[in-house]
Amino acid sequence: MASQGKKLINDPKDVVTEYIEGLVETYPGLQHLDGFPEVKVVLRADVSSETYDKVAVICGGGSGHEPAQAGYVGEGMLTAAICGDVFVSPPVDSILAGIRAVTGPMGCLLIVTNYTGDRLNFGLAAEQAKAEGYKVETVIVGDDCALPPRRGIIGRRGLAGTILVNKVAGAAAAAGLSLAEVAAEAKHASEVIGTMGVALSVCTLPGLVTSDRLGPEKIELGLGIHGEPGAAVADLQPVDVIISHMLQQILSTETGYVPITRGNGVILMVNGLGATPVMELMIAVGKAVPKLQLEHGLAVDRVYTGSFMTSLDMGGFSITIMKSDESILRRLDAPTKAPYWPVAVDGSRPPAKIPIAMPLSRSTKSDESLCWPLKLTQQGNLLEMAVEAALNAIIGLTDSLNEWDAKVGDGDCGSIMYKGATAVLDDMKKHYPLNDAAETISEIGSSIRRVMGGTSGILYVIMCKAASPHLKANRQADVTAKQWAEALEAAITAVSKYGGASAGYRTLLDALIPASQVLKERLDAGDDPVTAFVLSSEAAVAGAESTVHMQAQAGRSSYVSEDVLATAPDPGAMAVASWYRAAALAVKDNYKVA
Amino acid sequence: MASQGKKLINDPKDVVTEYIEGLVETYPGLQHLDGFPEVKVVLRADVSSETYDKVAVICGGGSGHEPAQAGYVGEGMLTAAICGDVFVSPPVDSILAGIRAVTGPMGCLLIVTNYTGDRLNFGLAAEQAKAEGYKVETVIVGDDCALPPRRGIIGRRGLAGTILVNKVAGAAAAAGLSLAEVAAEAKHASEVIGTMGVALSVCTLPGLVTSDRLGPEKIELGLGIHGEPGAAVADLQPVDVIISHMLQQILSTETGYVPITRGNGVILMVNGLGATPVMELMIAVGKAVPKLQLEHGLAVDRVYTGSFMTSLDMGGFSITIMKSDESILRRLDAPTKAPYWPVAVDGSRPPAKIPIAMPLSRSTKSDESLCWPLKLTQQGNLLEMAVEAALNAIIGLTDSLNEWDAKVGDGDCGSIMYKGATAVLDDMKKHYPLNDAAETISEIGSSIRRVMGGTSGILYVIMCKAASPHLKANRQADVTAKQWAEALEAAITAVSKYGGASAGYRTLLDALIPASQVLKERLDAGDDPVTAFVLSSEAAVAGAESTVHMQAQAGRSSYVSEDVLATAPDPGAMAVASWYRAAALAVKDNYKVA
Repeated sequence: MASQGKKLINDPKDVVTEYIEGLVETYPGLQHLDGFPEVKVVLRADVSSETYDKVAVICGGGSGHEPAQAGYVGEGMLTAAICGDVFVSPPVDSILAGIRAVTGPMGCLLIVTNYTGDRLNFGLAAEQAKAEGYKVETVIVGDDCALPPRRGIIGRRGLAGTILVNKVAGAAAAAGLSLAEVAAEAKHASEVIGTMGVALSVCTLPGLVTSDRLGPEKIELGLGIHGEPGAAVADLQPVDVIISHMLQQILSTETGYVPITRGNGVILMVNGLGATPVMELMIAVGKAVPKLQLEHGLAVDRVYTGSFMTSLDMGGFSITIMKSDESILRRLDAPTKAPYWPVAVDGSRPPAKIPIAMPLSRSTKSDESLCWPLKLTQQGNLLEMAVEAALNAIIGLTDSLNEWDAKVGDGDCGSIMYKGATAVLDDMKKHYPLNDAAETISEIGSSIRRVMGGTSGILYVIMCKAASPHLKANRQADVTAKQWAEALEAAITAVSKYGGASAGYRTLLDALIPASQVLKERLDAGDDPVTAFVLSSEAAVAGAESTVHMQAQAGRSSYVSEDVLATAPDPGAMAVASWYRAAALAVKDNYKVA
Repeated sequence: MASQGKKLINDPKDVVTEYIEGLVETYPGLQHLDGFPEVKVVLRADVSSETYDKVAVICGGGSGHEPAQAGYVGEGMLTAAICGDVFVSPPVDSILAGIRAVTGPMGCLLIVTNYTGDRLNFGLAAEQAKAEGYKVETVIVGDDCALPPRRGIIGRRGLAGTILVNKVAGAAAAAGLSLAEVAAEAKHASEVIGTMGVALSVCTLPGLVTSDRLGPEKIELGLGIHGEPGAAVADLQPVDVIISHMLQQILSTETGYVPITRGNGVILMVNGLGATPVMELMIAVGKAVPKLQLEHGLAVDRVYTGSFMTSLDMGGFSITIMKSDESILRRLDAPTKAPYWPVAVDGSRPPAKIPIAMPLSRSTKSDESLCWPLKLTQQGNLLEMAVEAALNAIIGLTDSLNEWDAKVGDGDCGSIMYKGATAVLDDMKKHYPLNDAAETISEIGSSIRRVMGGTSGILYVIMCKAASPHLKANRQADVTAKQWAEALEAAITAVSKYGGASAGYRTLLDALIPASQVLKERLDAGDDPVTAFVLSSEAAVAGAESTVHMQAQAGRSSYVSEDVLATAPDPGAMAVASWYRAAALAVKDNYKVA
């Protein structure tokens, strides 16, 4: 695990000031006091103690818990955050500087996590500020539920629940309440909240070597956020099991830490500890919510998921449960400009999320249209013969295609094309609506999609689906040659767009593009459709054969040397030339002028 | 590094569906289609294709990049996100389901990252949707700047810049623009954007073992977000150096990937790859912004910092630079309900952030007041004698205090108290304004704060600062005995509040509390102040001596067994009793009735 000590930082002793510099660069509404390196205070850029007419709400503590607390500074939440060094309580002078910078006549509330250093430093700053004439109140947060109750003052630690207390207090202050009222709401919030964590890995202080405390198969339950060992070490288990244990511990009636009983509403916070991907946090939420509802009989009123109060690069998360009431929900839902308070969580949750039904296809084809027609029209008959000839050409070319592909690719081009061709042949005889060219081409795509994997398969499907809309017959009339030319052009455009290749890239386009060009030219020049088609197919063959001289710019062939490439044409292009030529000849042999 | 493979998940094959379940539990505005496990589509709960009157904006791709893309679904950004399995492009049917679910008459824009699988699957879905009658446009994003330009279609990969394209498109759609206009804005955005990444560690797929590709001292530059090896492996360096390299590569005129030249405005995005703490991302921002400004001559218009498009649990980050213009800034600043689009970044940034000046203390004391007074008043004289006696008592008790503390603590209580007492003695003779009791007590606190470390030091400072405001003389009159009693009570309240101890916890409060109680009682009973003070000091001594029978509930002593504790009183309480008693006796000996 030594590499976990790797960090993208500069001098380890500068991490906190450099963090704050990046933070205020990111958020125009944040500023810091000019007191680096000793005084590390982040505050609202728009607040000045002389003019501030609300209760200031200040939180802080050691750093290493980012985005806590500086990331919660903003209208509607914290007015300032006091940052200590990593895992070290900020000194009194920093706290005093923060109080002086933002506290107006309404006074300020200090929200302090329950650690001896924070209590004493914030306490002294509070008393000193009071001696200077400021109105100051303090609320201490200790939401840890991991350890059994002990006599005395070595009490519950302040963990991620602090963020929720900050929000309640900040919203109360923004609503214009008095200091006593804001403090009372914060205190109430701190008394209905419980937190417990699980760690996959310990955190590494900047510049230090990573601890090997946890082996590859162990987790720690009830950890501290400063690398303190957890209350218990356990084997790694499915997160489902871990969450059940954590919820039971938080809601334990034995410890009675949080006054939550069946039928209550609760707020759930799942908090990443620094190195935990969002995916894992969300998986935990997806399991915790139904457990709270079904196993504990609680209504889940809000869910906050994210990395809110971390422990440097620790892997794992904490779960916080807060008893909700209308006042708390109103405070949590109140708007804030604090950058890290989660958005899009406000408002009532439905009691259960029922997934939305899968939408139906807008396809208009009826079952009837997908049946082999009882009687083929002249055009349906011609289409059948052309398609059949094309497929047979591919089937006949299987070995050559494989042979060419063995030189320039992975040698299965022929086999894959064979698979597609035989499937289309089978399906055509079963149910293609051959009197409808658009539907037939679309169905060819569907047959290919069913059996042909890989890039070449999906490119053929794209061609069919792109061509199909251009082949719709107008008022019972036959599909015109011009429509076929347009369909071919649309197919080429789609393949080029999604596949990314152009002419000269040594792909199937090197057969299709000349074919399309000649077809269009000849029709524009007034040639009859059959002649144009046949000439076009000659261009396809010539184009395919010319690929032997091309450098590959797409697919596997692009890794093959020029010398080797010169020994074979592109099999994809050759396949196109083969089926296209066969179709043209079949049309020529069977076309009867109407 | 084996333990990096540890994940807090359940069955590895369920990670994506379980992630989506947690996501929709967290955000009331999100929903998913009822197509698990094959179809994994997240969409706005308030949008239905029948009624939606805006262009739908859809993005997607393989999972493992959370919160991308599902976390960007919300009014003003994506209408739906199509999730594949981890690092696997979603199948055509999923994409089609998403298109059908949210696309109304205005059509939909597909934003596709430039990977073959995504291009082909989204491409086919687009063609099929068009065949069903939907209006569909596609924009492909390839913002990777790590690899040199190559001929052909093995082009630039889609990285975190995709998020910015999504926002531009989503805001354009929300503004009511037509499909062609939304597509044009998205395309323009995709053409002015470049990204490059640095990795500290590779990512581990759920259920798989972690790769050992990177050693403990190496980093990878120009990585892919699916665990593809980076363009280069380098030694771990200060992040400052790494960022310089990355910015140069992105802005290279040689590759010409992004059309940005000196004098342009840019948008900076620093994107965590999954396991990167916010602290490290912000440090990178703090270095990147001045480099862009000073070394590259660019104005930085917006900064987005966070983990926007990750690679499971990969450590490291990517940097994205986008050329800004008024239209793009307006789209980026537009409001959105997408949960993971960063807030509090909108609006103009100042060209440089000048820290706010440190606020001054509100303290009203003038230089004059902090001088040894030329002539002591009677009360000033009495205060001097009391304080001096108290300090001498402490100095005389040094060895005993150390001796008791050696049994129940760490044996330095006497030495620490000696240090504080001698400092106060020195300072008093230099500058204490002894005629002003409030200021003198406050100055005692300041002297202690200067020299006494540890918990006991700060507790004494808190006492002094809490007591001081109660000792202000009224209209030149002497401070009354009642004020002294109130000051003592305030000191006790503050120490108890911030230190967390109460009576009986075996702390200095066990001397202070009885002293305070007796003082108040005797004064209320009408005793003269001197008698009351002396009786009170007897209570302090008795209280301190009684600690020998107490179980410790605070500080180091709480780890010491009852048997050992019974061999010594609490040294902190004994120190209080000693100085308090000495002060009382000094007052008794020198008090002259006025």
